Amino acid sequence: MIRRMILLLFIVLIGPITASDQQRAELGSFKLESGAIIQDCRIGYRTFGTLNGNKSNAVLFPTWFGGISEHLGNLVGPDKLVDSTCFYIIAIDALGNGVSSSPSNSTQQPNISFPKFNIRDMVNSQYRTLTEILEIDHLYAIIGGSMGGMQTFQWIVSYPDFMDKAVSYVGAPWQTGYGRLVWEAELLAIESGLENKVPLATITEQVALIQIMNAYTPEYRNRKTAPAEVAVFRQDYIRRFAKNFRIYDWAAQLRAMMAHDITKILNGDRTIAAQKVKAETFILVSQQDHLVSPGPALEFAELLGAQTLVFDNDCGHLAPGCEMERFIKVVHKFLNN
Amino acid sequence: MIRRMILLLFIVLIGPITASDQQRAELGSFKLESGAIIQDCRIGYRTFGTLNGNKSNAVLFPTWFGGISEHLGNLVGPDKLVDSTCFYIIAIDALGNGVSSSPSNSTQQPNISFPKFNIRDMVNSQYRTLTEILEIDHLYAIIGGSMGGMQTFQWIVSYPDFMDKAVSYVGAPWQTGYGRLVWEAELLAIESGLENKVPLATITEQVALIQIMNAYTPEYRNRKTAPAEVAVFRQDYIRRFAKNFRIYDWAAQLRAMMAHDITKILNGDRTIAAQKVKAETFILVSQQDHLVSPGPALEFAELLGAQTLVFDNDCGHLAPGCEMERFIKVVHKFLNN
Repeated sequence: MIRRMILLLFIVLIGPITASDQQRAELGSFKLESGAIIQDCRIGYRTFGTLNGNKSNAVLFPTWFGGISEHLGNLVGPDKLVDSTCFYIIAIDALGNGVSSSPSNSTQQPNISFPKFNIRDMVNSQYRTLTEILEIDHLYAIIGGSMGGMQTFQWIVSYPDFMDKAVSYVGAPWQTGYGRLVWEAELLAIESGLENKVPLATITEQVALIQIMNAYTPEYRNRKTAPAEVAVFRQDYIRRFAKNFRIYDWAAQLRAMMAHDITKILNGDRTIAAQKVKAETFILVSQQDHLVSPGPALEFAELLGAQTLVFDNDCGHLAPGCEMERFIKVVHKFLNN
Repeated sequence: MIRRMILLLFIVLIGPITASDQQRAELGSFKLESGAIIQDCRIGYRTFGTLNGNKSNAVLFPTWFGGISEHLGNLVGPDKLVDSTCFYIIAIDALGNGVSSSPSNSTQQPNISFPKFNIRDMVNSQYRTLTEILEIDHLYAIIGGSMGGMQTFQWIVSYPDFMDKAVSYVGAPWQTGYGRLVWEAELLAIESGLENKVPLATITEQVALIQIMNAYTPEYRNRKTAPAEVAVFRQDYIRRFAKNFRIYDWAAQLRAMMAHDITKILNGDRTIAAQKVKAETFILVSQQDHLVSPGPALEFAELLGAQTLVFDNDCGHLAPGCEMERFIKVVHKFLNN
């Protein structure tokens, strides 16, 4: 009883004991698929929950486009998307997110001089972090959304023996024509803006508008924001967007997504890619997703014989968040089975 | 027989006799709703077919965003959208389209100095052209698509006694939140580009990408253009887009559409706007239109008790063109009844 009170006092004073501080794995020189090297490569991560004795409850959770492991913390906990009372969760920062090695934080290769990387490089850096630093040789599961879902698809093809289960939500195994156009439009605003010395605030605004146009469906925006309210909405959104916008990091992850294709090193063969996968896989998409089209994920799901769920609300790429209870319920069921 | 052969020879040599050359109505000083004046205002038009004795077969066909009356000629003729064998069609150039008075062609008020105008100004300039120059005091019908549909909605509210019938396809009586965001994103690329001396070719490319993202649905683009084909598609599209892109004209018509609202001079009252309308109206929209959302047109149609048709293909704003036969058939039926 006394012990429990001390523990409670401890929790009140320093926060929940499952909350994890930012940690960083030092990988040294990290060779990319292109042959280029990230100097002093550092991968950020946070852990939640407790690794059990036989290390059989580890779940990897990579970040989405522009996201950081701190954000993932909001989806981790009892009654959250990934339950930290039974799983040991490693929320891991993708290359270029401003926490792991990135154009914005590299002292030796800052900004434009940071080498270009792809989704496979993100996955390889995470593999090294797990095996070399955290001494984890097997995951119970990997779960990722959006660009985290892209990494999930790459993980199950690149390291098929490494996990039992995999969940991708609003992610994709390869790019589509429309997806490329969206990312190219954002990259054009960034590259031409830098080239022509357009003020950063203006470039940020341009990228933010392209992003918000595609993050939700037109129906959602029309339902939420009347024309007369657009000016205030736009200002609010851009202010929030600008807080996390580091221009060279954004461009770097854009390029990684634009080139994303899990079949690239398999001669473009989707069947062979599917045959490599051993994980039991659950693939969730949004029917009206204008940032990451649902088609490729559903096509790959069919090749895998994977379980699927298609959200059909008007929230577009943010569809899972608009049906959070259902989303959590189906993911729990899949992970706990 | 000889006569017919001479006529056929005539047609072969100089083209179909219904084809109309560009004409221009000189309106002198044209006062805008804002109070500003367009000096030496000139309104372009082309006529097709023959006006009958009691002037009861005139059909007005205003241009879409960025469009010119020459383009409308492709939709006019026997078996085309508007049949020139029974109607006298006046294809009319909207203010700011580079043919009618526009920032790009005004000698007294060029480019940035051209006064800002709205959709009502377009309609008023057309009313003056019809009544003062063409001596037409009544139209059998008005038909318009996209921004031409916006003008159609404004016409039936501003001059309710002037026409018997009206057809709007992929048009709108007022703006939506999403629509505003799209036009604002294009205007931002233009205004910030001009301000920061970004090369015209780059600004054009930015605007073109925002336009093409929204002109079709993501599904359509994914079906038509694989990621590897995007580079060529993008280049081709931008080359074609640039041919008709006059930067100040584009910005001027963007502003007109952004402010569009037929209820603006009616205290925002949609019911009163509908009560003013006397024309029999046919309203066609596209379910997945990302440039001009279908909601407002359908809402107004309900207030009017108007006939409607909802295209439900994946061509987005271009939906009518993807079901051309059906489109022509229903419009013929409506106009011929």
